[in-house]
Amino acid sequence: MGKDKTAITPTREEDFPEWYQQVVRAADMAENSETRGCMVIKPWGFAIWENIQSQLDSRFKETGHQNAYFPLLIPLSYLEKEAEHAEGFATECAVVTHHRLEAEKDPESGKTRMVPTGKLTEPYVIRPTSETIIGAAFSRWVESYRDLPLLINQWANVMRWEMRTRLFLRTAEFLWQEGHTAHETQAEAEEETRLIHKLYEDFLRDHLAIPVVPGEKTEAERFPGALNTYTVEAMVQDRKAIQAGTSHYLGQNFAKAQEITFVGREGGKEYVHTTSWGVSTRLIGTLIMAHADDDGLVLPPRVAPQQVVIVPVTPKEETREAIIESCEALAEALRREQSYAGAAVRVHVDTRDLGGGVKKWEWVKKGVPIRVEIGPRDLDAGKVCLQRRDRSSNEKDFVDREEFIRSAPQILSEIQQSLLDRLTAFREENITECGSLEKFKDHWQGDDNPGWLLTPWAGSTEEEESLSKEHKITIRCLPNGQQEGPEAPCVLTGQATSVRALWGRAY
Amino acid sequence: MGKDKTAITPTREEDFPEWYQQVVRAADMAENSETRGCMVIKPWGFAIWENIQSQLDSRFKETGHQNAYFPLLIPLSYLEKEAEHAEGFATECAVVTHHRLEAEKDPESGKTRMVPTGKLTEPYVIRPTSETIIGAAFSRWVESYRDLPLLINQWANVMRWEMRTRLFLRTAEFLWQEGHTAHETQAEAEEETRLIHKLYEDFLRDHLAIPVVPGEKTEAERFPGALNTYTVEAMVQDRKAIQAGTSHYLGQNFAKAQEITFVGREGGKEYVHTTSWGVSTRLIGTLIMAHADDDGLVLPPRVAPQQVVIVPVTPKEETREAIIESCEALAEALRREQSYAGAAVRVHVDTRDLGGGVKKWEWVKKGVPIRVEIGPRDLDAGKVCLQRRDRSSNEKDFVDREEFIRSAPQILSEIQQSLLDRLTAFREENITECGSLEKFKDHWQGDDNPGWLLTPWAGSTEEEESLSKEHKITIRCLPNGQQEGPEAPCVLTGQATSVRALWGRAY
Repeated sequence: MGKDKTAITPTREEDFPEWYQQVVRAADMAENSETRGCMVIKPWGFAIWENIQSQLDSRFKETGHQNAYFPLLIPLSYLEKEAEHAEGFATECAVVTHHRLEAEKDPESGKTRMVPTGKLTEPYVIRPTSETIIGAAFSRWVESYRDLPLLINQWANVMRWEMRTRLFLRTAEFLWQEGHTAHETQAEAEEETRLIHKLYEDFLRDHLAIPVVPGEKTEAERFPGALNTYTVEAMVQDRKAIQAGTSHYLGQNFAKAQEITFVGREGGKEYVHTTSWGVSTRLIGTLIMAHADDDGLVLPPRVAPQQVVIVPVTPKEETREAIIESCEALAEALRREQSYAGAAVRVHVDTRDLGGGVKKWEWVKKGVPIRVEIGPRDLDAGKVCLQRRDRSSNEKDFVDREEFIRSAPQILSEIQQSLLDRLTAFREENITECGSLEKFKDHWQGDDNPGWLLTPWAGSTEEEESLSKEHKITIRCLPNGQQEGPEAPCVLTGQATSVRALWGRAY
Repeated sequence: MGKDKTAITPTREEDFPEWYQQVVRAADMAENSETRGCMVIKPWGFAIWENIQSQLDSRFKETGHQNAYFPLLIPLSYLEKEAEHAEGFATECAVVTHHRLEAEKDPESGKTRMVPTGKLTEPYVIRPTSETIIGAAFSRWVESYRDLPLLINQWANVMRWEMRTRLFLRTAEFLWQEGHTAHETQAEAEEETRLIHKLYEDFLRDHLAIPVVPGEKTEAERFPGALNTYTVEAMVQDRKAIQAGTSHYLGQNFAKAQEITFVGREGGKEYVHTTSWGVSTRLIGTLIMAHADDDGLVLPPRVAPQQVVIVPVTPKEETREAIIESCEALAEALRREQSYAGAAVRVHVDTRDLGGGVKKWEWVKKGVPIRVEIGPRDLDAGKVCLQRRDRSSNEKDFVDREEFIRSAPQILSEIQQSLLDRLTAFREENITECGSLEKFKDHWQGDDNPGWLLTPWAGSTEEEESLSKEHKITIRCLPNGQQEGPEAPCVLTGQATSVRALWGRAY
């Protein structure tokens, strides 16, 4: 017998980064490829992405957005139009310079190899984001205020040549959605930015069971070219922050760079106000770091590709068939009679010819919310053995089969809620209000990731950057609803301010 | 008043290629971009693609396939492994050679521009197809026969640097699905290839109302690296052929090039047998050329983003509100009470403040199957004015409102069937059996696209290529079920053969 190649060896406490990699591998979600920094998303990981996609997609459509698709390659000259934007992405662009290959004999080895040929007069960049190419389309599409707003979303792959990558969290190629909208007025564009900001917050809380802190980014942390960036910040189990989604008000910057104009109500030429917003496969990394435990992945039921997995336990050949039949019938009953979150319960029966323990641990590591085993004695007693992924892997409940069918949606709902509650409590414990510079500086000395600090803040961008650099932290956001609070002295400058800044280490 | 910028001027008879471009533009489906050969797929075109995707995706999943995602960029060395494959795609590869941009002052103009820097030691190719990179993953994933079959599908963008492009039908970047599977035996892999071939045939007929001729490709027309390519060939209204989907049996070619081996049942090392198969946004071009008429797009109901569009006709202010309310109520009733093809009827109420004629023609050009108008008199009479896209644009039926609600699914079903019947009859009329070389050669002299010929065939690849070149035709396929027929003399060599070849001009 070999070792279990997918056992997770370090605990979260022992080595969080290594634990993370092992959870991804043990759940068979993704792996590195030989293309630098690019991952292969395997079926279990991709099924989670499909679930996220379909949920978000219907939320976007309900709020009036339409999907479209724009070219992968962006002419270099487009990128140059918005200077700040170009500069922001210049160091991480994959550049296409040729459009053919030709076979050539290597003079040294004598082997034939392919070499690029057909040099392009203007190189293209693989989109790191699509503001410029979508802006070019908008400038063709908009003529009058009657054509506004334009509310467009794209599901696509993008490429940012990252030097240090980590599966899902930071990869050179990733999958995302990017919303791009154009509006007649600043007020409407800002309303759109906030609408999506709220949509992301709700989605993360209600679907992924991740409570986020919504807020604004400071100037230092804004999207290149944006006037305002709203973010939703998740705290994961090592107390670091993950920026889980952003929504940008771009003002008229891109409109002016790309001549997106319209004839206004008064007959004059005006520039549109644009927004952009996105979430990516990074959400899957966030999901793992938020909920997984030392045994492996833990999936909130709403996002789980399978919500219930039924494992037949068949020690004796003579009862094997009856048990498998009973499992299939249970699955059918659940699918037919019960629904959860507006859809049929997703149930899988694992009939593979493998040991029960092997199968159990596979589903534990894949994070399935409910595991059910049925063995000969259960069959006779009309019971099932129920195990919940939000509880210890040894905890079992023997429940009446009919009772289980009736209560399955309720149990899924409880698991969804328990994951959210656990993470909310954890986050509350790890955000500390801090008004003293001494305590502030002390805080970052100790443990690697000591949780977040919320401070009164009136410093300049330079002061922010200097503090950030010194302590390897960033202002994650100026949390929503905190700007209206009582005035207090800025933690750095002492100047009275009603603004609060949330500081932390981040992925 | 300006001209209607979206009027379609030539008829299909007058100028089919120009008519096609204008239909795409008039339906607002897609447009060219400034990225060479790449299109922007606009919301109406993309909604059709989403519909195709979701239909095919469930058919793939029902037959046991899982989705995954593989890197966009393929190391050049991967492509070189399968020589025939590399050669087949070498002339149309976009090559990434750099990974940064740097600002540089142009010595002549003094302007700052971005130039590629950070040269890669090994260039990458943007995937023209993913056999090689998915094969590399398969070689990691397969260890034993127990790991087989692997049944994987990917929805992705691919890039083939085409010199002459046409929206949807041939673009440098296109969207597609590519299935890749690995099997223990040749028999299983061939069965998979045929399963998908049949799935495509059924999908095109039942969902897109396009009757195809399913068959095998000759060696000359096979996918680079395949042992056998199955195709479904559609005849569009100019009597040209479009290869609508292909399914390839790759034998052990890719397995040997990439060392995809497994420990077999007897304990020895064996190579897997692989398949690949795909359809692309080309299906949308096929759909247009198959069904659209001189007025614009015609959509089969199953694939239409909206199946019923209701246009309130509100000449007088005093009845306006009541009419709009009545339209909304009708839409609600349709959605709630009726379903078509297993889903709620897709209904849109067009309340825009535009003239009724303008709105009517917009929906005609977008190909919506059923248009309904409600004006003051209809409201009073409890009637609706019904117009079907498969009939003349002037034909109207005034039908009882309740009767319309009841019969809407039936009407959609009739339209779906009438489009299929029309195209099937057209195809039958335009396929001629031909056993004489003289008649064969005559056939291609006259009209540009004189329809297809079905001939007994026993020629060599060289003979096929020579005939093809002479007449600007190709063997579209050796149709299914034709190889078992009575023997007849080959149209070229006179040799007795039971094989039939279908010849035509193609896109």
